[in-house]
Amino acid sequence: MNTVIKNGIVISMDPKLPRVLRGDIAIEGKKIVSVGDIPAGFTADRTIDAENSIVLPGIINAHCHLSMVLLRNYADDLDLFTWLNEKIWPIEEKMTESQVYNSSLLGAAELIRSGVTSFADMYFFQPETCKAVEQAGIRARIGAPFMGDEETIEKKLPALQKLYDEWNGRDGRINVDSAPHAPYTLTPGALQMAIKFAKDNNCRIHIHVSESKQETEENYEKHRVSPVEYLEKAGLFEHPTYAAHCVQLNEEDLDILKKNGVYPVHNPTSNLKLGNGFAPIPAMLEMGIHPALGTDGASSNNNLNMFEEIHLAAIIHKASTGDPKAVSAYQALQMATIFGAEALGLDDVCGSLTPGKEADIIMVDTNKTHLQPLHNPVATISYGAQASDVHFVMCAGEVLMEKGVVNTIDEKEVIRRVSEDSAALMGEASSI
Amino acid sequence: MNTVIKNGIVISMDPKLPRVLRGDIAIEGKKIVSVGDIPAGFTADRTIDAENSIVLPGIINAHCHLSMVLLRNYADDLDLFTWLNEKIWPIEEKMTESQVYNSSLLGAAELIRSGVTSFADMYFFQPETCKAVEQAGIRARIGAPFMGDEETIEKKLPALQKLYDEWNGRDGRINVDSAPHAPYTLTPGALQMAIKFAKDNNCRIHIHVSESKQETEENYEKHRVSPVEYLEKAGLFEHPTYAAHCVQLNEEDLDILKKNGVYPVHNPTSNLKLGNGFAPIPAMLEMGIHPALGTDGASSNNNLNMFEEIHLAAIIHKASTGDPKAVSAYQALQMATIFGAEALGLDDVCGSLTPGKEADIIMVDTNKTHLQPLHNPVATISYGAQASDVHFVMCAGEVLMEKGVVNTIDEKEVIRRVSEDSAALMGEASSI
Repeated sequence: MNTVIKNGIVISMDPKLPRVLRGDIAIEGKKIVSVGDIPAGFTADRTIDAENSIVLPGIINAHCHLSMVLLRNYADDLDLFTWLNEKIWPIEEKMTESQVYNSSLLGAAELIRSGVTSFADMYFFQPETCKAVEQAGIRARIGAPFMGDEETIEKKLPALQKLYDEWNGRDGRINVDSAPHAPYTLTPGALQMAIKFAKDNNCRIHIHVSESKQETEENYEKHRVSPVEYLEKAGLFEHPTYAAHCVQLNEEDLDILKKNGVYPVHNPTSNLKLGNGFAPIPAMLEMGIHPALGTDGASSNNNLNMFEEIHLAAIIHKASTGDPKAVSAYQALQMATIFGAEALGLDDVCGSLTPGKEADIIMVDTNKTHLQPLHNPVATISYGAQASDVHFVMCAGEVLMEKGVVNTIDEKEVIRRVSEDSAALMGEASSI
Repeated sequence: MNTVIKNGIVISMDPKLPRVLRGDIAIEGKKIVSVGDIPAGFTADRTIDAENSIVLPGIINAHCHLSMVLLRNYADDLDLFTWLNEKIWPIEEKMTESQVYNSSLLGAAELIRSGVTSFADMYFFQPETCKAVEQAGIRARIGAPFMGDEETIEKKLPALQKLYDEWNGRDGRINVDSAPHAPYTLTPGALQMAIKFAKDNNCRIHIHVSESKQETEENYEKHRVSPVEYLEKAGLFEHPTYAAHCVQLNEEDLDILKKNGVYPVHNPTSNLKLGNGFAPIPAMLEMGIHPALGTDGASSNNNLNMFEEIHLAAIIHKASTGDPKAVSAYQALQMATIFGAEALGLDDVCGSLTPGKEADIIMVDTNKTHLQPLHNPVATISYGAQASDVHFVMCAGEVLMEKGVVNTIDEKEVIRRVSEDSAALMGEASSI
């Protein structure tokens, strides 16, 4: 099918095109054919009106725990260990496969509603999340989780390999990565098993690194090096890696990330809410490191709204450095699109509106009181827009949301099921 | 007219009521009669269904420059003086009364859409803003602006007095305050004229204080004291004062604010975006100071979305202090409601859902993918909700927005007019 998206205000994120242009996008099947003008002789089976819309590449949420939406607003304003030990972990132990499936569907609908077409996940019962993603129609890199010691992982390895064999490459949208949880939650031997998994399957590595001061200090006590140095010495960075958080870094850590081509994934809401601090994003950008952007899980956020993350990435570093020019509106948008695609190894496929890439395209309605007068469309997205301004989402040429309605998920039914799951898990009392 | 708002999830912000209750609200004319249960014998002329809605007091935006929405997304990512000298001030010099009127209407519609029923303003062509507020149906404290030297103000005084005489007390919704711009933009004599205006008219004082490091340092150089000490010595705090920003404060400054009952107004987005830093909100709360919350103008924000401010107030101080318990979800909501009402001297009238107060009431639709499962309604508002989740707004018993439609302002027409104004002022090229 040939599609034309007509007369939009296009922010392509392709450095070879003007930063903002008014024009059309031609799509043939899954792929973008042209951006700006329609090629001579191209006839459209379908024309989508983008008048008054800002047209952007699909947003990329490079660090998420999708089905944690089930724990949304369940436990807040606690110190990290009370939160984990008394609230999150006891509930997670009771979670079932079907609850993870329902919550993954709810989370996927939320991602679509905020313009996300690709995300990277790390959680348990991954096949359930894969099924939800397959139905939702978005792209995902699903982490095969490694946590604990060699013995624990030895038992889980067959299931992780099965996850890879069954789901990697499915529909050209789903990939499976090796996901060692964090340096402090794996024995050195178990970490090597995660690296071997990446090597054997030729997949990427998704890991949490240097999120909190405590983690970093304990790593020094235990291994006499920073978490980043520790992972480098373990050989982890010999594989393409995207590393969530990267908050507590020193200059040597930054050099190591740069040298090894590691992609940090910035999670501003989570880092703020858990009191972990400010990742050195301006320093990374200055060094030519390309940080991606993510929401983390909904329990430390409490939503999966990438428009909030873009906004925060653009404003918080101006205050933490005292420089109102730190992290521009455009850089925040790069983090949420093309840098995210690079982190996830998808930059040949998506991350910008570029002829030859697949059609992952969203539209933001500018005909809103809070977005007028329009002036600068890039600033409009990074400083002014809400997720609810997204009215159209396309992934790989398929329309997932149109006029504000998600096509691929019955949201009412999913909300009903997740409410039941939540009542069963946490009791009716948790929801008033 | 008797109204009942039925079966809502009520966060009343009244400390004498449970923090969250499920129940009804009875309203007689302008006033709230009961919260929780309907009094025996009360018959409703109108029943409003609040099933699946969180019912809250109207939000209070305690520091705003309403008509600066005209400059939304016009100049960003610049250092303060380039921004002011080359962008903001040259445009402001050209702004006309009718442009301020149109922009004030647009801004008022945006406020209503994000649940704001009261705000405090400081700008020029104030009668135009008053007219817009009168039409919009919300409450405002309009600042009579003082800036410059005695001679300049001497010339403007009759117009400021006229503003007060014509508009103060209008409809029981509009008040006029004395608004000396800032310690650094007024000569000592001119500052005294603003204080005298407050004294003569028995009104409140709205001022910018200690926003930037530079301002604070220059105040030390010029007057050998901090801006806060300078204002105390000038006698300004002998009048009820709300002071925007209060970012660069030392311990003595905090003591002075506390001793004098001054209300700081926290503007997180603006402080972050302009690189000014983090106001010491956790310290204020610990001392029993009640900070209010505001958006500042849309040119340093770039919207008037109090839900973003609530969210930021709840998360940024956790990171700046390293304490995940700093500024709870409930405290952020207090800042946006009851503390705002106290700052604006309106706590007998609004700021909480309390029998005897006027009916300033909003509803947030919880039947949204990103707000489910609901669990904790307070966390839902502070960490999860968007302004677009507000579907109902009432001020002084009048319905200003219902089912997402603003009743008092023709938004399409206002957007059209403001777009024309913006093209006339800044050229078509500024909007692509």
